[in-house]
Amino acid sequence: MDAMSDSEIIREKLDQAVEILEEKGVDVWITFVRETSQVRDPCLDLVLGFDLTWQSALMISRTGERIAIVGRFDTDNVECVGGYTTVVGYDQSIRGLLMEHLTRLDPRQVALNFSEKDPAADGLTHGMFRTLTDMFADTKYASRLVSAEDVIGALRGRKSPTEVACIRAAIQDTEAIFQRIGRLIRPGLTAREIARWFHDAVAEAGLGLSWGDDYCPVVTPGPDAPIGHAMPGDFVVQRGHLLQVDFGVRKEGFVSDLQRTWYVLEQGETEPPSEVLAGWEAARRALEAGRKALRPGVQGWEIDQAARQTLTQAGYPEFMHGFGHQVGRTAHDGATILGPHWEKYGASVDGVIEAGNVFAIELGVRVPGRGYIGCEENVLVTPEGAEYLSEPQMALWTI
Amino acid sequence: MDAMSDSEIIREKLDQAVEILEEKGVDVWITFVRETSQVRDPCLDLVLGFDLTWQSALMISRTGERIAIVGRFDTDNVECVGGYTTVVGYDQSIRGLLMEHLTRLDPRQVALNFSEKDPAADGLTHGMFRTLTDMFADTKYASRLVSAEDVIGALRGRKSPTEVACIRAAIQDTEAIFQRIGRLIRPGLTAREIARWFHDAVAEAGLGLSWGDDYCPVVTPGPDAPIGHAMPGDFVVQRGHLLQVDFGVRKEGFVSDLQRTWYVLEQGETEPPSEVLAGWEAARRALEAGRKALRPGVQGWEIDQAARQTLTQAGYPEFMHGFGHQVGRTAHDGATILGPHWEKYGASVDGVIEAGNVFAIELGVRVPGRGYIGCEENVLVTPEGAEYLSEPQMALWTI
Repeated sequence: MDAMSDSEIIREKLDQAVEILEEKGVDVWITFVRETSQVRDPCLDLVLGFDLTWQSALMISRTGERIAIVGRFDTDNVECVGGYTTVVGYDQSIRGLLMEHLTRLDPRQVALNFSEKDPAADGLTHGMFRTLTDMFADTKYASRLVSAEDVIGALRGRKSPTEVACIRAAIQDTEAIFQRIGRLIRPGLTAREIARWFHDAVAEAGLGLSWGDDYCPVVTPGPDAPIGHAMPGDFVVQRGHLLQVDFGVRKEGFVSDLQRTWYVLEQGETEPPSEVLAGWEAARRALEAGRKALRPGVQGWEIDQAARQTLTQAGYPEFMHGFGHQVGRTAHDGATILGPHWEKYGASVDGVIEAGNVFAIELGVRVPGRGYIGCEENVLVTPEGAEYLSEPQMALWTI
Repeated sequence: MDAMSDSEIIREKLDQAVEILEEKGVDVWITFVRETSQVRDPCLDLVLGFDLTWQSALMISRTGERIAIVGRFDTDNVECVGGYTTVVGYDQSIRGLLMEHLTRLDPRQVALNFSEKDPAADGLTHGMFRTLTDMFADTKYASRLVSAEDVIGALRGRKSPTEVACIRAAIQDTEAIFQRIGRLIRPGLTAREIARWFHDAVAEAGLGLSWGDDYCPVVTPGPDAPIGHAMPGDFVVQRGHLLQVDFGVRKEGFVSDLQRTWYVLEQGETEPPSEVLAGWEAARRALEAGRKALRPGVQGWEIDQAARQTLTQAGYPEFMHGFGHQVGRTAHDGATILGPHWEKYGASVDGVIEAGNVFAIELGVRVPGRGYIGCEENVLVTPEGAEYLSEPQMALWTI
């Protein structure tokens, strides 16, 4: 039923897609998929909102046509979306209908969902690419295939006010869960137990997780637990240690991604020890330096550099990940990344920030013998700069 | 935590993969992925069981090596699986490590996860294919790339006794839900309300759905509701009509896929009218004819033909879908399909049935003015033939 209530956003995104095709000078964009419950092109959430079974082509033209060619059984559902100007079903083969509409539109560019730099624009499988190029083999369209990455990046990245409101709602629910569970954490609990509390809270609230349940939340107690993308194990919350949690929820198709950090006071301690406080301050200052650098027109790597340099100049080692990634329908919402020029980030860090982008910005500091301090907030880029969508954690929380 | 308990099955599948590489004459098979929470290669469930973030290569060699090259943050979790002989992490680029291991193994074939015929073997995105071929550009390996579809088809299709037990458990839970909800269905309920009951029952039992929640269950009351892959809408259960439900659950990573059909008695009726009973008998007989044809060594299309001809010879129109698909980690578990030689099924219907395969077999009959009769059961192929894993529906259920 989600899909039906999402129809309004889908229609907004389809309108936006036509504008973006015009802006980027692309005649036709085709999302070509099958069995999407098995391998799901992330663009499907932008242009349809539910799964398709047989080979299906969702064609959007610069002239404003939106053509869905889908298996017979799927036509009714596509009609319900209301955003497609033509919906045609087939029983045996998509080829004839696809070539008929393509020939009629006669595009100079056919953009497809493949991208080396952006996973969120890379939903076309290689087998489906081969299927399509076989169909185009003896036509002029075989040499007109281009990547849709710029179209998809803009479409996904420019959040409408409706989309921002959805993300904000997911963030607020995430903060409420952090608050509630934070009050219950005591020394002696394992990371596994804490993770289960988060899962239970999510289920009770009728929410989903922002990413895979093995890693959402990541719970890192003390200095010995592996940091980052690690499944919560049997490490125990102990006095004199830090506890970091990386967590987010999915609410009505949109997600959050936040980190919060606690310090567990020793008997008699009234505040964290000085090296812990110093680590926290350094991390917060670096996060804030990055946030201040984040505004329309700047490239991704520049923002990462502002945060990274602030941290290293304070005498801390640099963090071994990018400073920020877009958040929306998923916790890694594609396109421009705020990261250094490392090979694994490719050209994604050269992307230019646009108003309407929503980012998770994050970094961390390891305090020897204490554990890991993680700061992560979600921000909206406006013409004036980046404003917090989350209530930022301004001080370490204590247990 | 699922991933940890799955480790035993993953280790079994990795051992099986080495045997299959030997059998198929393939030196090295690489599953090459990134950001798998965004686009998930279905093979990941066979060779790892959880998500990976950065570009990652899971290399399996015919000589028995299993090499995982993953982002630094993911190494601990991959180590925990226990099935990889080498686990290496990187911070900046996968290229050097990948080429080093490839050169050392020096394979004559490098199998990759792309397939035109099998969605479950087609998890490599076109962008990732381009990334890999860029790496191989000036090496002899560029011309040694082959599809891993046969390797993956065999690995996925040959269920171990552990895997069969998991599927059977999912089926039993599905049958219990069908029974429980069946007792509550009354004229006047909408398809939407019934679908919600199924969702609630699944949530209460701590299960997941076998496929996307918009289409699981499909609830088809009466002759006017759209059939098949349609979202349950406001069509109402009425006396004198049929009610068909297509539904399955996910339990500990394995799924079921069943259809059950009810007839809603008119006031004073003690059994369904003759044309409804005749339709049911024809459907059941055709399903049974297909099941009897299903045994090792037969091709997929032959089994479809046995069922299809039985139905058409009884004077009913043929069903507009394939007769069967494999079931396992997903409801469409790839490789061989029991279907006709329609273009959309491609070569998947020429596949040869093997012992250990688990299929959902299904067909239906529309009764004018009454609605749709759907029969779908799950069966295991043994050396002697196909045995029911589900308790087959032998007669129409009445309300």
